[in-house]
Amino acid sequence: MPVYAAPVKDASFVLFDMINIEKYANLPGFADASPDLVRSVLDEAAKFVEGVLQPLNRTGDIVGCVRNADATVTTPPGFKDAYDKFCEGGWGTLSADPEYGGQGLPHMLASVFEEFAISANMSFSLYPFLTQGAVAAMMAVGSDEQKRKYIPNMVSGRWTGTMNLTEPHCGTDLGLLRTRAEPQEDGTYKITGTKIFISAGEHDLAENIIHLVLAKRAGAPDNVKGISLFIVPKVLVNEDGSLGARNAVSCGSIEHKMGLHGNATCVMNYDGATGYLIGEAEKGLNAMFIMMNAARLGVGLQGLGVSEVAYQNAVAYAKDRVQGKAIDRSTPADVRADPIIVHPDVRRMLMDMRCFNEGARALTLWGALQVDLAHRAATEEERQKADDLISLLTPVIKGVLTDKGYENATWAQQCLGGHGYVEEWGMSQFVRDARIAQIYEGTNGVQAMDLVGRKLPKDGGKLIRGYFETLQGFLAEAKADARLKDFVGPLEKGLGDLQGATMWLMQNAFANPNNAGAAAYAYMNLLGLVSLGHMWTWMAQSAYAKLDQGAEDKAFYETKLLTGRYYMNRHMPDTHGWRAKVEAGAELMMAMPADAF
Amino acid sequence: MPVYAAPVKDASFVLFDMINIEKYANLPGFADASPDLVRSVLDEAAKFVEGVLQPLNRTGDIVGCVRNADATVTTPPGFKDAYDKFCEGGWGTLSADPEYGGQGLPHMLASVFEEFAISANMSFSLYPFLTQGAVAAMMAVGSDEQKRKYIPNMVSGRWTGTMNLTEPHCGTDLGLLRTRAEPQEDGTYKITGTKIFISAGEHDLAENIIHLVLAKRAGAPDNVKGISLFIVPKVLVNEDGSLGARNAVSCGSIEHKMGLHGNATCVMNYDGATGYLIGEAEKGLNAMFIMMNAARLGVGLQGLGVSEVAYQNAVAYAKDRVQGKAIDRSTPADVRADPIIVHPDVRRMLMDMRCFNEGARALTLWGALQVDLAHRAATEEERQKADDLISLLTPVIKGVLTDKGYENATWAQQCLGGHGYVEEWGMSQFVRDARIAQIYEGTNGVQAMDLVGRKLPKDGGKLIRGYFETLQGFLAEAKADARLKDFVGPLEKGLGDLQGATMWLMQNAFANPNNAGAAAYAYMNLLGLVSLGHMWTWMAQSAYAKLDQGAEDKAFYETKLLTGRYYMNRHMPDTHGWRAKVEAGAELMMAMPADAF
Repeated sequence: MPVYAAPVKDASFVLFDMINIEKYANLPGFADASPDLVRSVLDEAAKFVEGVLQPLNRTGDIVGCVRNADATVTTPPGFKDAYDKFCEGGWGTLSADPEYGGQGLPHMLASVFEEFAISANMSFSLYPFLTQGAVAAMMAVGSDEQKRKYIPNMVSGRWTGTMNLTEPHCGTDLGLLRTRAEPQEDGTYKITGTKIFISAGEHDLAENIIHLVLAKRAGAPDNVKGISLFIVPKVLVNEDGSLGARNAVSCGSIEHKMGLHGNATCVMNYDGATGYLIGEAEKGLNAMFIMMNAARLGVGLQGLGVSEVAYQNAVAYAKDRVQGKAIDRSTPADVRADPIIVHPDVRRMLMDMRCFNEGARALTLWGALQVDLAHRAATEEERQKADDLISLLTPVIKGVLTDKGYENATWAQQCLGGHGYVEEWGMSQFVRDARIAQIYEGTNGVQAMDLVGRKLPKDGGKLIRGYFETLQGFLAEAKADARLKDFVGPLEKGLGDLQGATMWLMQNAFANPNNAGAAAYAYMNLLGLVSLGHMWTWMAQSAYAKLDQGAEDKAFYETKLLTGRYYMNRHMPDTHGWRAKVEAGAELMMAMPADAF
Repeated sequence: MPVYAAPVKDASFVLFDMINIEKYANLPGFADASPDLVRSVLDEAAKFVEGVLQPLNRTGDIVGCVRNADATVTTPPGFKDAYDKFCEGGWGTLSADPEYGGQGLPHMLASVFEEFAISANMSFSLYPFLTQGAVAAMMAVGSDEQKRKYIPNMVSGRWTGTMNLTEPHCGTDLGLLRTRAEPQEDGTYKITGTKIFISAGEHDLAENIIHLVLAKRAGAPDNVKGISLFIVPKVLVNEDGSLGARNAVSCGSIEHKMGLHGNATCVMNYDGATGYLIGEAEKGLNAMFIMMNAARLGVGLQGLGVSEVAYQNAVAYAKDRVQGKAIDRSTPADVRADPIIVHPDVRRMLMDMRCFNEGARALTLWGALQVDLAHRAATEEERQKADDLISLLTPVIKGVLTDKGYENATWAQQCLGGHGYVEEWGMSQFVRDARIAQIYEGTNGVQAMDLVGRKLPKDGGKLIRGYFETLQGFLAEAKADARLKDFVGPLEKGLGDLQGATMWLMQNAFANPNNAGAAAYAYMNLLGLVSLGHMWTWMAQSAYAKLDQGAEDKAFYETKLLTGRYYMNRHMPDTHGWRAKVEAGAELMMAMPADAF
C-alpha cells in the first residue's frame, strides 16, 4: 500500500521563510492568513488528504468509474463519501470570493492544498478542481444573475463544473468545432453536438453538474471567431434556485484510459440541450482561456503532486529493501546487504526527484502569489507586473512540471525494480496517472508554442524582459552573499544561456516562424531550468537567513542547502544542451517531405 | 488498430550498404547468407510478423494470460496458433547451431528478425527469445549429453526455456538467494524454493518447459560463490527423449503488471523438483551471465522494436489528423487545417524517434556482428577484439536503447494527444510494454554499474581503449570526405567529451568508488550518444558511397543523410551535459544522511 505524508514543513518553508507571506498582509484576504491560521489549515489539510483521499487512490485505479445502462456514472467506492467530507470541510472554498461563499484566503494557500490533494488522489482531486476552473471563467465573464444563480453552489461543492472543448475531430484547433447553438425565442439556446474527453462529465458525487460548453451560434463565422460559451446545466435550475427538469445532455460512454481511472472521462452528447450564453457572443474563446490558464497552473501542480508522492514511496522502498553492499564499504562488514539507499545510482534518482519537487513547489507557490497579486494588488502597475510574470510562466509550469512529473514517477518506479512494474505496489499507477497531465489542457507542445509564439512576442517582448529584470535584480542581491556562490554561478550561466537563446529567437523567428516552432520545446525547458535555479538560489538565501537567525531545526535548513546545491550542480548545466537545440533551427527538422516519413 | 510494416529496407541498408555482410563471407554460416537469401528471409519475416504476430498484439494486452485453478496458464487467444506457425517457419532456428537443428546463419540476421517480431508483438516474442537465451547458456556449459537431450527440441520450439534468478527478497543481489538443491543418490538434485518474475514460466504454447534455475547446493557458501545452475524440466525427459513424469514445479500465480500482459510472468514454486546440475558446481553465476548477456542484447532490441512501431503509428496519425494551419503559411490557404505533420513540434517528436531508431538499428546489428565475430572469426585476436567491443557495448545497448525506447513510445503517444491516452488507439500499450525493458535483465542502473564498475576497469581499461582506437581509425578515414563534416565535427566533439569523462573516472573513481557509482548512468548515456553518432557518421559515409555509385533510389539515401544530420545537430551536443554530470562527482549525491530523506 503506497504511503503519503503531506510535506507541510516544506510548504511552510516556502510560504514563510522564502516568499514571506506576511509581507503581503496589506492585500485583501492576506491579513486573515496569519501564520497560525495557515499552519492550522495545512495541518488539517494533511490530515484530510492522508486520512480520507489517499486510502481511496488504489481502489479508484482498480475499480474505476462505471457508466450504467441509464447513462449515469458510478464513481469508485468511497469517492462519494470523501466528496461529502471535502464539501463539509469547506476545502473548495479556501480562496473563493467571500461574496459567493468563499473564504477569500490567498490563492497560494489553496495551491498548497491542491498539491496535497493531488498527491493523495489525483483522480479524485479533478472533480472539485475543475469546478474551480469553471467558477473562474464564470466569475470573469458571467452576468451578476448567472453568478448568483450558479456560483455559490459550485463554491460549496453542492454542484460541480466541467469544461467542454474537445470534439472527436478537434482539440487544439477549436476553430473546427461543430457543436451548434440554435437561439430560442426565450433567449436561451438549444445546444447540439458531441464533446469528448470531458473530465468529470458525469458522476454521482453532486446533485448537479454545470457544463461550460463551447459552441457556434447559427450564422456565426465557422472559425475561432465564431465560438461562444454556454452554461448547460445537467439539471436545469429554477428561478428560485431549486432544481428543475433534467436537461438533454448525457454521457454516451466513458473512456478506457491508461490511468486516471477514478475520474470519469466522458463522451458528452448534447441533444438540443438548453444552454445560456455566458459572456459576449462569439468571444467564447476568451472566457475559455481564463478557465484554461487557471487550469494549466493546476495541471502543473499535478506534475509536482504525483512526483512528490512517487518520490516518497521510492524513498520508503529504498530505505527498506536490502540488496548489495555499499561500494565504498562504509557500512558494517557483518551485515550481508544494505538498504539500497546506500547505492549512488539509487541516490541519483532520489535526489533528482527531491530537488525537482522542492524547486517546483517554490515555483508553483511563487506563481500562485502572482495570481494573487494580479487580482488583489493595490496598484494597476503591480497587478500588471504580476500578470505578466504569471502569463509567461504558466506554460512553463504546465509543460515542464508535468514532463518532469511523469519522468519522476518513472524514476520512482525504477527504484523498485521489478516490484515497480507490478500493479500491487502502486508505482505503475503514479506513472499512468501522471501521463495525462502532459496531454490535457493543451499538450506540452502547445504550451511551448504558447510561450514562444504568444508570450515572448507579446508587447514587444515585455514579459521576458520583465522576467530578466526580476532575475537580474535578484542576482545582484544574492551575489552579495559569498556563501551563495555555488548557486549564483550556475544561475548566471543558465540565465546567460536563456538570454542567448531569446536573442537567437528574436533574430531568427520573425523571418522564419518555423524557427520558433522548432525551438519552442527546448526554450520552454530552458526557461524551466532557469526558473527552478532561481527558486533554489532564493531558497538557499532564505535557508542561510534562518540559520543566521539561529533557527532551531538546523538540520532542516542544511538539508535544504544540500538539495539546492545538488540541483545547481547536476541540472543547471543542461541549459547548454537546450540552448543548442533552440539555436539548431528548423531547417533539418522541416526538410523532409511528409511522404518520406 | 495500430499499424506496422517491418523496416526491411532500412535493415538491408545496414546489412549491405553499411556493415557489408558480404565482406564476412569467410565466416562459418555467412557464405550461406547470400544477398538473395537474406532479402528473401527478411521479406518472409516481414510477412510473418505483420500477418501473424502483429494482429494479436492488442488482444494480448486486453485479454492477457490467465492462470487456471489447476495451475496451468492459458495464453491470449491466437498465441498458440501463432507459436505453431513460428515453429513451422523455423524462425527460432535462424542462427542456431546446425548440429542441433539450427540453420547456422549469422546472428546479425536473427537480430533483424528479432527486432521485427518485437515491434509486432513484444509479449509473444519473449516466449521464443527467452528460449534462445537458455540455449545459449546450455550450449556454453552443458555436457554433450545435456545438449543432445534438450537443445534440439528447444531450437525447434517444441520446448521453451526460462531463466530463474529472482526471489522475493533478491534480484540484483543473487548472493542472498535461498533456493536449495539437495543432492540425491542418483546424482540428481531436489530443488526447493520460490522464484518470482519468471517470464514464460508457465504457458500452453509448448509441450515442455526447460527451466534453468539458480540454487545453492547444501553446504555451499551462502553467497554468490555458492550458486549453482540446474536444469529443471517441467516434464521430466526420459533417456529416449520421450516425455516422462510431471516434475514438482508449478506456477503459483501470475503477476498483474503494467504491461506485457501477453507474456505470463510467473511465481514458480519448486517443491523438491528434480534438477540436474549444469556446468560446474558453484559456478552457476558464470553460466547465467552468458545467458544474461545474450538476453541483454535482446532487451536492447526491445527498446528499438517498440520505439519503431510506436514511431510508425505516430507518423500515420500525424499524416492523417488535420488540426491547425502550418505556421509558415506554406500550405494552400483554402484548406482549413493541415495534417499535424506540418507543425515543427510534431516534426521534432517524429524526427527524434526516427533518428534514434535508425541509429539504434545500426548499433544493434553492428553489435550482433561482434557476437558473430566473437564466436566465428578465424583468429583468437579477432575473436577477442569483437568480444571486447560487445562486452563494452552490451550495457549501453541494453540501458540506453531501452530508456530511449520508453521515451520514444511516450513521444509517439504524445503525437496523438488525448487519443494517445485512450487504450483503444494502442499507444498506451507501447508505453506500458516498453517500460519493463528498463527494468528486467538488470535494471538500467545495474547496466550502468556493469559498464563503469566492471567493463571500464577490465584489463586495465583495454575495452574502452579498443573502442577509442576503433573510433579514431574510423574518424581518420571519414575526415577525408569533406561532405561528412557535419557528422565528423560533432562526433569528434562527442568523443572528446567521452574521453574527458573517461579520464575523469580513471582519476577519481579508484580513490572514491562512489564517484564511479554517481557517474555511471551519465557515462552510459554519454557512450550511447557517441556510439549512435558513430553509427550515423558511418551510415552517412555509406549513403554517399551509394549515391556516388549512382544508386537508383536517390531519395532513400538523401533522406538517410538528412536524418543523420538531424541527429548530429540536435542530439550530439547533449554529450556536454552528460559529461558535466559524470564530473559532478559523488559528494553532493551522497552527502545527505539516509534519514533526512
